[in-house]
Amino acid sequence: MATPHLPARKLRVGILGATGTVGQRFIVLLETHPVFTVHALGASPRSAGKLYQEAVRWKMAQPFSPVVGSLVVNECRPELFHDCDVVFSGLDSSVAREVETAFVRADLPVFSNARNHRMGEYVPLVVPTANPEHLDVIQHQRKQLQLRRGFLVTNANCSTTGLVVALRALQDAFGPLSQVMVQTMQAISGAGYPGVSSLDIIDNVMPLISGEEEKMETEALKILGGLQPGATGFRPLTETQVSAMCNRVAVVDGHMECVAVKFSQQPAPSPEQVQQVLADYTTDAQTLGCYSAAKETIVVATEPDRPQPRLDRENHNGYAVTVGRVRRCPALDVKFTLLVHNTILGAAGSGILNAEIALAKGLLVPLDS
Amino acid sequence: MATPHLPARKLRVGILGATGTVGQRFIVLLETHPVFTVHALGASPRSAGKLYQEAVRWKMAQPFSPVVGSLVVNECRPELFHDCDVVFSGLDSSVAREVETAFVRADLPVFSNARNHRMGEYVPLVVPTANPEHLDVIQHQRKQLQLRRGFLVTNANCSTTGLVVALRALQDAFGPLSQVMVQTMQAISGAGYPGVSSLDIIDNVMPLISGEEEKMETEALKILGGLQPGATGFRPLTETQVSAMCNRVAVVDGHMECVAVKFSQQPAPSPEQVQQVLADYTTDAQTLGCYSAAKETIVVATEPDRPQPRLDRENHNGYAVTVGRVRRCPALDVKFTLLVHNTILGAAGSGILNAEIALAKGLLVPLDS
Amino acid sequence: MATPHLPARKLRVGILGATGTVGQRFIVLLETHPVFTVHALGASPRSAGKLYQEAVRWKMAQPFSPVVGSLVVNECRPELFHDCDVVFSGLDSSVAREVETAFVRADLPVFSNARNHRMGEYVPLVVPTANPEHLDVIQHQRKQLQLRRGFLVTNANCSTTGLVVALRALQDAFGPLSQVMVQTMQAISGAGYPGVSSLDIIDNVMPLISGEEEKMETEALKILGGLQPGATGFRPLTETQVSAMCNRVAVVDGHMECVAVKFSQQPAPSPEQVQQVLADYTTDAQTLGCYSAAKETIVVATEPDRPQPRLDRENHNGYAVTVGRVRRCPALDVKFTLLVHNTILGAAGSGILNAEIALAKGLLVPLDS
Amino acid sequence: MATPHLPARKLRVGILGATGTVGQRFIVLLETHPVFTVHALGASPRSAGKLYQEAVRWKMAQPFSPVVGSLVVNECRPELFHDCDVVFSGLDSSVAREVETAFVRADLPVFSNARNHRMGEYVPLVVPTANPEHLDVIQHQRKQLQLRRGFLVTNANCSTTGLVVALRALQDAFGPLSQVMVQTMQAISGAGYPGVSSLDIIDNVMPLISGEEEKMETEALKILGGLQPGATGFRPLTETQVSAMCNRVAVVDGHMECVAVKFSQQPAPSPEQVQQVLADYTTDAQTLGCYSAAKETIVVATEPDRPQPRLDRENHNGYAVTVGRVRRCPALDVKFTLLVHNTILGAAGSGILNAEIALAKGLLVPLDS
Repeated sequence: MATPHLPARKLRVGILGATGTVGQRFIVLLETHPVFTVHALGASPRSAGKLYQEAVRWKMAQPFSPVVGSLVVNECRPELFHDCDVVFSGLDSSVAREVETAFVRADLPVFSNARNHRMGEYVPLVVPTANPEHLDVIQHQRKQLQLRRGFLVTNANCSTTGLVVALRALQDAFGPLSQVMVQTMQAISGAGYPGVSSLDIIDNVMPLISGEEEKMETEALKILGGLQPGATGFRPLTETQVSAMCNRVAVVDGHMECVAVKFSQQPAPSPEQVQQVLADYTTDAQTLGCYSAAKETIVVATEPDRPQPRLDRENHNGYAVTVGRVRRCPALDVKFTLLVHNTILGAAGSGILNAEIALAKGLLVPLDS
Repeated sequence: MATPHLPARKLRVGILGATGTVGQRFIVLLETHPVFTVHALGASPRSAGKLYQEAVRWKMAQPFSPVVGSLVVNECRPELFHDCDVVFSGLDSSVAREVETAFVRADLPVFSNARNHRMGEYVPLVVPTANPEHLDVIQHQRKQLQLRRGFLVTNANCSTTGLVVALRALQDAFGPLSQVMVQTMQAISGAGYPGVSSLDIIDNVMPLISGEEEKMETEALKILGGLQPGATGFRPLTETQVSAMCNRVAVVDGHMECVAVKFSQQPAPSPEQVQQVLADYTTDAQTLGCYSAAKETIVVATEPDRPQPRLDRENHNGYAVTVGRVRRCPALDVKFTLLVHNTILGAAGSGILNAEIALAKGLLVPLDS
Repeated sequence: MATPHLPARKLRVGILGATGTVGQRFIVLLETHPVFTVHALGASPRSAGKLYQEAVRWKMAQPFSPVVGSLVVNECRPELFHDCDVVFSGLDSSVAREVETAFVRADLPVFSNARNHRMGEYVPLVVPTANPEHLDVIQHQRKQLQLRRGFLVTNANCSTTGLVVALRALQDAFGPLSQVMVQTMQAISGAGYPGVSSLDIIDNVMPLISGEEEKMETEALKILGGLQPGATGFRPLTETQVSAMCNRVAVVDGHMECVAVKFSQQPAPSPEQVQQVLADYTTDAQTLGCYSAAKETIVVATEPDRPQPRLDRENHNGYAVTVGRVRRCPALDVKFTLLVHNTILGAAGSGILNAEIALAKGLLVPLDS
Repeated sequence: MATPHLPARKLRVGILGATGTVGQRFIVLLETHPVFTVHALGASPRSAGKLYQEAVRWKMAQPFSPVVGSLVVNECRPELFHDCDVVFSGLDSSVAREVETAFVRADLPVFSNARNHRMGEYVPLVVPTANPEHLDVIQHQRKQLQLRRGFLVTNANCSTTGLVVALRALQDAFGPLSQVMVQTMQAISGAGYPGVSSLDIIDNVMPLISGEEEKMETEALKILGGLQPGATGFRPLTETQVSAMCNRVAVVDGHMECVAVKFSQQPAPSPEQVQQVLADYTTDAQTLGCYSAAKETIVVATEPDRPQPRLDRENHNGYAVTVGRVRRCPALDVKFTLLVHNTILGAAGSGILNAEIALAKGLLVPLDS
């Protein structure tokens, strides 16, 4: 592993949507970060002007620091974030499109968790441990938008994130997949606060998460696809069919996914080979020495009843994907169960790790440097 | 619908495993039944000799009647049940094989929920609203075992039950299925009492239910298969591949299943055609006028976020299967979500409805008739 | 028990707030009622003009009938309910004061579950199995408001309801109480839909239900107090101190309450005497032969681990209060645990049973009679 | 705060009951401890001889280290722990009495979480942030039992622990309490694994925890009482009446307690005074500079809806008690809600912090020193 590349000073971070569930997770993850420091917070006009500790309804198990608590919340206007080295957006999709566009036009580097721009022609949709090479399109994006240091990078939907990490490992080792069936049991924190009504989820399962299946089926193909020559755009997969069935269950954090895959090349690899490849999988995040990178990108659980959300979601601080129960599938080729922490690697953590990779690659450039 | 055929007197019922979860459900369902009356209760030697109200740790939301409460619990020996017209077994699999064999040899008609004999060569494995015609093998079984009125009929595993009702409807209408992927989110009551530890299921999902996937993948093929000529045995499906991924979630009653199917005949039917066929599906249970038969074998929910366990498990008193979200599958052909009440249609209710069908068909014969 | 007094025809019922949680419970309870029939539904302007089945987000486990589903929802204006014999209000407190006032002024008999008028000078606050004699103030109210057949009767807060049933039994038998400590563990359905956020209640307890403690501490004194001479008003208790600590827990239906009491008269009764008095307690609701009255007003559970919400909330169709664990209190005199179904006896059921009593007493008069 | 007194080398720790819930928590807390190091593990004969990683069904969210995982589990015989500086017991009460007696007789210093010896005449029952001065009875115990370095110290029941920390603060400031009413909502982890059946707790509350109320009512009086002259024994409170009502709710970790108190001295302090005293409360654990001591012994939450188990149980790594909602009680004097992490301060953490205090006081003496 490379020695981590630490910049001369901590990078000043702006967080948009700072009072929301994803915004709160950004703050928790950044409070002790060696490279980034929380510098400016943006939220709705209703919160603007208040101290953060007055504006937020904090729902994390870890407290925020007094320093963050006494920051004054801003409206989400780029001129109020001009001295930020990097901006993380946890904005709600109802406002993200417009706000993020304004920030990028103001030449700010933005890592967004919102869904609005994910399928944009020049917008990298990056799961840091699945397709970090897509960050290279930043240069082309800058040209198109005539930016100097600004750009927009999005990360994927939370349940897509866990899936593609495992699929990328398989695709790299065994060639293209022809069919992917995935069924999710997703945590309530994915819906924000107040989010899921308790009457909908106690002693119950919700068999619909609006728009989620479409996101998984679409985003996965872009993420797992290649780049246009010269990194001038994306070539989504066409040979892989992804089918998703998404459910909400009474779990606080951690999305479980039952996955079955069919390989294009036959005979298919054995479950043992699949398991080995998943366990061995490493990515740029590790080789570049990124601070938040999990020591194991994929933790392969060997106990027969794992992964479990409560026991495994914090593996490697929530930046790992945990896979278990790798076995033969009577209908497709191989099936397994995976778990991703939906608000760490599945949301805020992806943004942060994407930024760490971009910094290591020289794509994210601190101000005055 | 036929006028229900009521016998001259109520049939006296023996219940084996009467203090367990399935036994308790038998009692709840039979307390108000117009054809069957609870007559004798069997349980472990530890309970034998006690009044039922002293022996049982009752976990149902409905109370039992004083009449049942003051029955004396017997050991599970056939001579203590000789005056029963029919015996329902909710025995644990650790003892069911031996006990049920003894009861059948004593010429008692037994409907068993235990898994032990399900795959037996002459033993019908019957989901009442999927393959009631398999009951016809009773005659052959009697010949083989030299019985006059006794027999053994089993019902299926709870999660298999919900699945095959829908699959049978599709198979009848559109011909054989080539692939079935099913992923379950199963209720805790399926594991009995004390069953699932609360530490394993609160804020958690258990990705393994030991033996459950194998049961689904095997039992479904027998149930959906045909009979040997002359109803002398079974011809399990060979052309259909069933793949199951089973999980336990924090729901009290009601198993949810995400199902995707591929049809042998192409082009495949549309989701609309599938939905229509499911809604129109009727079975012998209805045409024979059985008391417990659901008015709709399959309830097709049209709201986009149904079925849900808490809201739909009691549909038609728990004897219906509820299906929703029928839609195209990008990987196979069609996918949908179904719900079955795991301790009613998925366990005790199957036994009772099987008995009602057998009675209507003249296969179950009351004593002294 | 008296023969129930059935009117010549079913009384036509209007339901205000029909799409809300309490309104839905009114509909479930009235669908099979022998005396009342659902005739008109009122809701917010947003729902008005729609069929009920289109306007409602139904969250009950029992379905509504097609007849109710095809009723057109009205705005909550009295002229649209002029042909109702009686009106039940499940309105939210944000609008209940004004709407209910308009209905009463239009000479309609209104039974309200809203909190707004509960402490009104001439407004009976009636828990049907605690203080039905307070209904006699209806005559005085009519005089004050110059009404012919209209009136306003309120029922109590859900957690107050369970408490006062037990306290009234004790007060009748043993004289005034000096101190009452009550701590609640309340179900999520009490907060309506969407109500409690799942992030606030899964793997959690909420130690605050806004305004609830104040309601319990105040309403109980009015309910348990006497009447002014001539039934011209109320005399709230002054000698009893009630202290409430209210919490929300992850239960769908059924409020649990841990109660400790100190009697004014010493020596205090023994736990055995208290238990006997609770078990023997009967009220007008039973002696008048009211249809919905529980056969036992208070069910005294003798198992040491009861009452439990899931197992006991449906006792006598949710119209009973269940009490258990009656024992000596080292600090006060006697303590016990009670359970009330918060949306049946604790809300809609109180309104319905109050109406049944008022009808039996000749206080509720059908139109054209 | 004193500079923490670090011994020359880490103290070797033996853990009895190492595979149980409390044993697992000891391991989690000790893995990163600067003073103690896990040296020997004891469990039932069934586990003895196996590697820890094979013997344990690990249920903690944090993993154990490979070093601990590869320790060989011993039977709980003192000669197998002779080289331990200190022994922590998380044994089940069914075996703790005998085993712990043998260990103490073998001159080993034992800190036990089991209930068996808590009320023993010479056995300190110590909540480290409530009555650390009770440790001084160790000297007298040694004399009585003719021990050189061995002794037995117990910590309290989990729900007692949270309560007495707050009560001690009040008692120190305002003099004796005359009445204490406490009602608990306790987490499932308190019952171990498998412990509470999920059928008993999902959509439910259990109103009985066998023996728990008696423990709270008895242990609190010993803990809050004084010492005999010369620290030769205990003088339990006689002037305080404690009444407990204990319930189990669907929470993984963290016991909530609703507490109401009456002071002997009147007029009673105001809620504001009580709150201030709780916030200012410090103990020997802090002044002696113990590593595990919380920076705030009692965290006073000022938000109106706190404490909450999910958000506050980890305050100061689970070693703090969190109090909120301090307000006037209409029946007694003052009431409030408190939260204690039942397996950290409420179990294993108490043992560890007691050991740290005993070490700082020179009562726990490392081998060969």
